[in-house]
Amino acid sequence: MNTTAFSDLDKYYMAHAILLAKKGRFTSSPNPNVGCVIVANNIIVGEGYHQKAGLGHAEVNALAIAKDKAMGATCYVTLEPCSHFGRTPPCALALTKAGIKRVIIAMVDPNPKVAGDGIKILEKAGIKVDLGLLKNEAMDLNRGFIKRMQVKEPRVTVKLASSLDGKTALKNGQSQWITGPAARCDVQYFRALQSAVLTGSATVIADNPSLNVRYESLKNHLDFDLTLRPAEIRQPIRIILDSHNKITLKEKLFSLEGKVLLVSLLPRDDLPKNKNQFSADIEQLIGTDDGHGRINLKVLLTQLSDYEINDLWVEAGATLAGEFFNHQLVDQFILYQAPKLMGSQARDLVNLPDYSKMIEVVQLSLQSVVLIGNDIRIISNITSDRG
Amino acid sequence: MNTTAFSDLDKYYMAHAILLAKKGRFTSSPNPNVGCVIVANNIIVGEGYHQKAGLGHAEVNALAIAKDKAMGATCYVTLEPCSHFGRTPPCALALTKAGIKRVIIAMVDPNPKVAGDGIKILEKAGIKVDLGLLKNEAMDLNRGFIKRMQVKEPRVTVKLASSLDGKTALKNGQSQWITGPAARCDVQYFRALQSAVLTGSATVIADNPSLNVRYESLKNHLDFDLTLRPAEIRQPIRIILDSHNKITLKEKLFSLEGKVLLVSLLPRDDLPKNKNQFSADIEQLIGTDDGHGRINLKVLLTQLSDYEINDLWVEAGATLAGEFFNHQLVDQFILYQAPKLMGSQARDLVNLPDYSKMIEVVQLSLQSVVLIGNDIRIISNITSDRG
Repeated sequence: MNTTAFSDLDKYYMAHAILLAKKGRFTSSPNPNVGCVIVANNIIVGEGYHQKAGLGHAEVNALAIAKDKAMGATCYVTLEPCSHFGRTPPCALALTKAGIKRVIIAMVDPNPKVAGDGIKILEKAGIKVDLGLLKNEAMDLNRGFIKRMQVKEPRVTVKLASSLDGKTALKNGQSQWITGPAARCDVQYFRALQSAVLTGSATVIADNPSLNVRYESLKNHLDFDLTLRPAEIRQPIRIILDSHNKITLKEKLFSLEGKVLLVSLLPRDDLPKNKNQFSADIEQLIGTDDGHGRINLKVLLTQLSDYEINDLWVEAGATLAGEFFNHQLVDQFILYQAPKLMGSQARDLVNLPDYSKMIEVVQLSLQSVVLIGNDIRIISNITSDRG
Repeated sequence: MNTTAFSDLDKYYMAHAILLAKKGRFTSSPNPNVGCVIVANNIIVGEGYHQKAGLGHAEVNALAIAKDKAMGATCYVTLEPCSHFGRTPPCALALTKAGIKRVIIAMVDPNPKVAGDGIKILEKAGIKVDLGLLKNEAMDLNRGFIKRMQVKEPRVTVKLASSLDGKTALKNGQSQWITGPAARCDVQYFRALQSAVLTGSATVIADNPSLNVRYESLKNHLDFDLTLRPAEIRQPIRIILDSHNKITLKEKLFSLEGKVLLVSLLPRDDLPKNKNQFSADIEQLIGTDDGHGRINLKVLLTQLSDYEINDLWVEAGATLAGEFFNHQLVDQFILYQAPKLMGSQARDLVNLPDYSKMIEVVQLSLQSVVLIGNDIRIISNITSDRG
């Protein structure tokens, strides 16, 4: 194995493998997005991606197309081939058996316990392995999966929408609509990429949201894959933080299909015994008290990792969103800003402690600022070095 | 006179005249920015711009270079040549005398009382006149001047700076610095383009600002004209709204040169009789009571028009800025947003009435959204059609 220079053609094939991997972005979770290209004599003889848990891995799908043209060929794969017998036999073994001569890998397995095992199998079989080509781009495919593998917590994105003066609703609660249809369609696109959508019981009771992905809106997004049928869209798990069991189960979201996780501090005895009572598949998760009668969010993230949640999307009110920021649990922040001014009497974006120095406030690092319809979308990461 | 099609060369020469006009943007107020190009046989034989009241108009400066090459030439000018004997003889007459054969004008005089008079002089002399080439670009040179000529009010730009959640200072008042050095340099650039900078006495008492243009900062701005020396920079008039004479005259801004206009509801008797007592040239302006013991802003704008203020830059706190918005007196809004979250306990951007419907809030129309250093600058116009 080495990390020497790659040719322009190598980069081209790996970039193609990354594009293939992206085709699985609405379906692969909890598995990672992986793409694979097999090249013989500068011709692509096989390509594949991982679509969904239980279906073939990217390498297996590419080999199935390449057939005996894989003999002596080079394989480009965005993630280290697996080494374990899981739902499918190890891909490293499959590549070896097919007679692949060289494997170029963008990044190693993010699980520190198995990282490098796939490479060992390949090298043991005499295959030349090169590592690190378009590594950052490959990591961008699976930021949530990588974080879960490494720290056993999902990647957390907080999404909020406000006016230019940071207001989310009028004093009387009216908020429809702050942002326009293009921004709302964009939210559907991002939701569709998540493993789970989280909110608080106060928001559910006040706004009665569906919290699901709506194909009718999603299909209008420029980056959506129109070859996907409505039934193929993964509905993110809907997670409701309901410390004191205030949810009545009569709210709209329970009438829609998909899993709902109710996180409370105390068990409730009114959960349906008959699975057909609700369209939603409801499950309760008992959280840990943070010492103030609220759910400990840091512990919750570890619990959600056990549910194989890679990417957690938080659409919450000022208090819950503020707690995620205040406990430094936010990886990414997406803010949709409407070109409006609502005034100081309107409701605030995020509740945070009463800071006494400017150096203490939440510091963000801008990643992108773009117009979405008539609104502004600001994506930022959290800068951790606070005073 | 006609408004027929223009050639690409015509557009090129007029675009050059517009660039020339811009050279006066730090000095020409209260006069408009005007540029002029004289072309004979497809060669520029003369060019000029208006630098400052009392100095030559653009056409006169261009003719001084062209000399007898102006005979039979075409003149491109961004604003209708003047027809009156003011500080200089009428330019329309000068063009006639020089033997110019054709005049292409971007826009007519914005003063409805004299609009067209310059064109009449030219046409009467047998000169071919064409109107409207790059009219919008020519209007952009003088938005404030045009508004003052047409409605006898300056063009109002409100500038604010906040965190992403619309906060301007911590609860304890600390606010230095929300935005970074690049944004602060950008503010210096915009201030240098203004006729006047306006703020309230509360801001002066709390922050003790200079409110002047600082060459040391301005010279770092990419769009600054480095051929200008510090003494050539026009210092905008500093206007302090001080309804109840709370200003003590001991504040820092009075120790800096330039004009200060104190707007109050009652005369004060402690103004300096000896002009040398303060570095600043202080004058009091008695405003009109709005019925609530505050200065009527709409009336004030008309008063400021009499001071020949074309462009008024408002850097005020949440209350005064809010009053400008609430009375629909804002033409342009510039917001610098720092990638920070300060929380609901911090201070709000703008005080507005308690709206009961979303349709009542201040609606803006985005003009540009760009990064300035690590901050976002959002320029918007005000949409007047509110519910």
